[in-house]
Amino acid sequence: MTYDDFLAVLDGKTKPVGSLGRLEDLAARAGAVLGSDADPAAALTIFAADHGLAAEGVSAFPADVTAQMVANFLAGGAAATVIARRLGVPVTVADCGVATAVPGALGMRLGAGTDNAARGPAMTPETAERALAQGRAHGAKGPPLALFGEMGIGNTATAALMAHKLSGLPLAELVGRGTGLDDAGVARKLAILERAAGRTGDLTPTEVLSEVGGFEIGTMAGAMLGAAGAGRLVLVDGFIATAAAALARALEPGCAAAMIHAHASAERGHAALLEHLGERPLLDLDMRLGEGTGALLAVPLVRAALALFGMASFESAGVSGRV
Amino acid sequence: MTYDDFLAVLDGKTKPVGSLGRLEDLAARAGAVLGSDADPAAALTIFAADHGLAAEGVSAFPADVTAQMVANFLAGGAAATVIARRLGVPVTVADCGVATAVPGALGMRLGAGTDNAARGPAMTPETAERALAQGRAHGAKGPPLALFGEMGIGNTATAALMAHKLSGLPLAELVGRGTGLDDAGVARKLAILERAAGRTGDLTPTEVLSEVGGFEIGTMAGAMLGAAGAGRLVLVDGFIATAAAALARALEPGCAAAMIHAHASAERGHAALLEHLGERPLLDLDMRLGEGTGALLAVPLVRAALALFGMASFESAGVSGRV
Repeated sequence: MTYDDFLAVLDGKTKPVGSLGRLEDLAARAGAVLGSDADPAAALTIFAADHGLAAEGVSAFPADVTAQMVANFLAGGAAATVIARRLGVPVTVADCGVATAVPGALGMRLGAGTDNAARGPAMTPETAERALAQGRAHGAKGPPLALFGEMGIGNTATAALMAHKLSGLPLAELVGRGTGLDDAGVARKLAILERAAGRTGDLTPTEVLSEVGGFEIGTMAGAMLGAAGAGRLVLVDGFIATAAAALARALEPGCAAAMIHAHASAERGHAALLEHLGERPLLDLDMRLGEGTGALLAVPLVRAALALFGMASFESAGVSGRV
Repeated sequence: MTYDDFLAVLDGKTKPVGSLGRLEDLAARAGAVLGSDADPAAALTIFAADHGLAAEGVSAFPADVTAQMVANFLAGGAAATVIARRLGVPVTVADCGVATAVPGALGMRLGAGTDNAARGPAMTPETAERALAQGRAHGAKGPPLALFGEMGIGNTATAALMAHKLSGLPLAELVGRGTGLDDAGVARKLAILERAAGRTGDLTPTEVLSEVGGFEIGTMAGAMLGAAGAGRLVLVDGFIATAAAALARALEPGCAAAMIHAHASAERGHAALLEHLGERPLLDLDMRLGEGTGALLAVPLVRAALALFGMASFESAGVSGRV
């Protein structure tokens, strides 16, 4: 059944046509991707890695925090993990290249952090291909709802650079406070990213990843492609996940049909990037943490939306139609 | 612990201060009302009644639909009931005065529908007091999260009248399409409501209920007061529920602290009424069905918000602070 078929089914249910607004669109999109209205299970993978750009001082927090937060995810003490536990969503923590390897994380290491993209390529072309390939293999497996989060000090800077190269949007529209820079910090971050962007001209999508990308973002983009290819529905988190989605879409435009944007991040560049992609997210709660926290909050919305197919029809319930 | 105490606890958790935006505000509000961060259970009561105003042709659907939908709720085939089932929220259906009594509904009948408020008082002052009192008793019992939905053909008209009398906002800003009027239908609805409003001048809150109110809306307002008084957190649904909240707040302003507005309805008057009350809802999905559907979707958000108090602190997790 197509999106339009699922919408037509909803039009016969006991409610005024269209009265559940965007929940109906969500139901039809989810139904068309999953091929079923069964209550879908979900799983979250948090991809973590370090960024050479962090050495330039683009974050309010020190780079050590990446490894510390990976340990915190594994111990269940982070925002994403407490929310996931409450919503019944299992979490996998994948080390895609944290400076110091963290015991207990799923090993997907591509190095000990990227090289500094302000001074040279973040990774080799071969490593970029490996990131996408290992992500594809990971994303192709799992329950119907695919959630991908990230952790990496400096990765709003990396995401802004990738989004700039992929979309052509000005860096000034894509650079924000990240974990909490002040105005002077944002201005410095922008200047550093202008330098990094200026190193190269137009790039292919995979070159964007190798020149200015991140291990966790490239792996996530691959995971989105793998999930979409496997008929899973991807709940896209915030700014960094949307940069990964932009890379996935640049590689395979068709994957966009499998992606639902979960929330509008308060990180400055997200609104511009979403508009560029033509996407309107489900939630808008001024969140800007990442980790998959926004994607998690959208899981009950998708479950509720799919439940609508279990409603009675006007005919079956004996409810009168319009006057 | 106060709202500020709960916010201070969140500031020590392993995330940048304020990075979960409105989810943090929700967590602190819910914590302060419930006095606990325990995972809260929820229950929905759908209050149903008929409206004498429906005889004026203010709805796109015939009045019979109220009783038919009550039967549909009891059979579990309506939008609110399928969503509630999926989210694990039990539903009670209360007949506050449907034209034809529906077997199986909780009996809270105040008559066989209100009288036509365009021609005279909707109910006696005594009945208005009974509506509030039976609502209070009902709302004072139940799990921590109190959800109240409604069903009543013609009740966006009644809610617009009540909101107008309570807030002083122009009727033209409060009258909308309801279940699906066209432009001519909305103009006719507005003219009828102007006539009804013109019958009386300034009114006390209880007089608003007796002159132009509805049995289900008055009972819901009482239930909100009862729930707030019992330390429950009220998730306010859409336009009609917000009119009930406005009545409850006019009677006892302090109850506002216990109310979270779940979603912004697409029904025209909701935005104006929310602005008047100084409230910003959690969700904005262009929904306009009522029944408690919007309130239900906010339940997982409250549960996720309260889960944040289970996060590790920077100290306990050994995570470094800002540079």
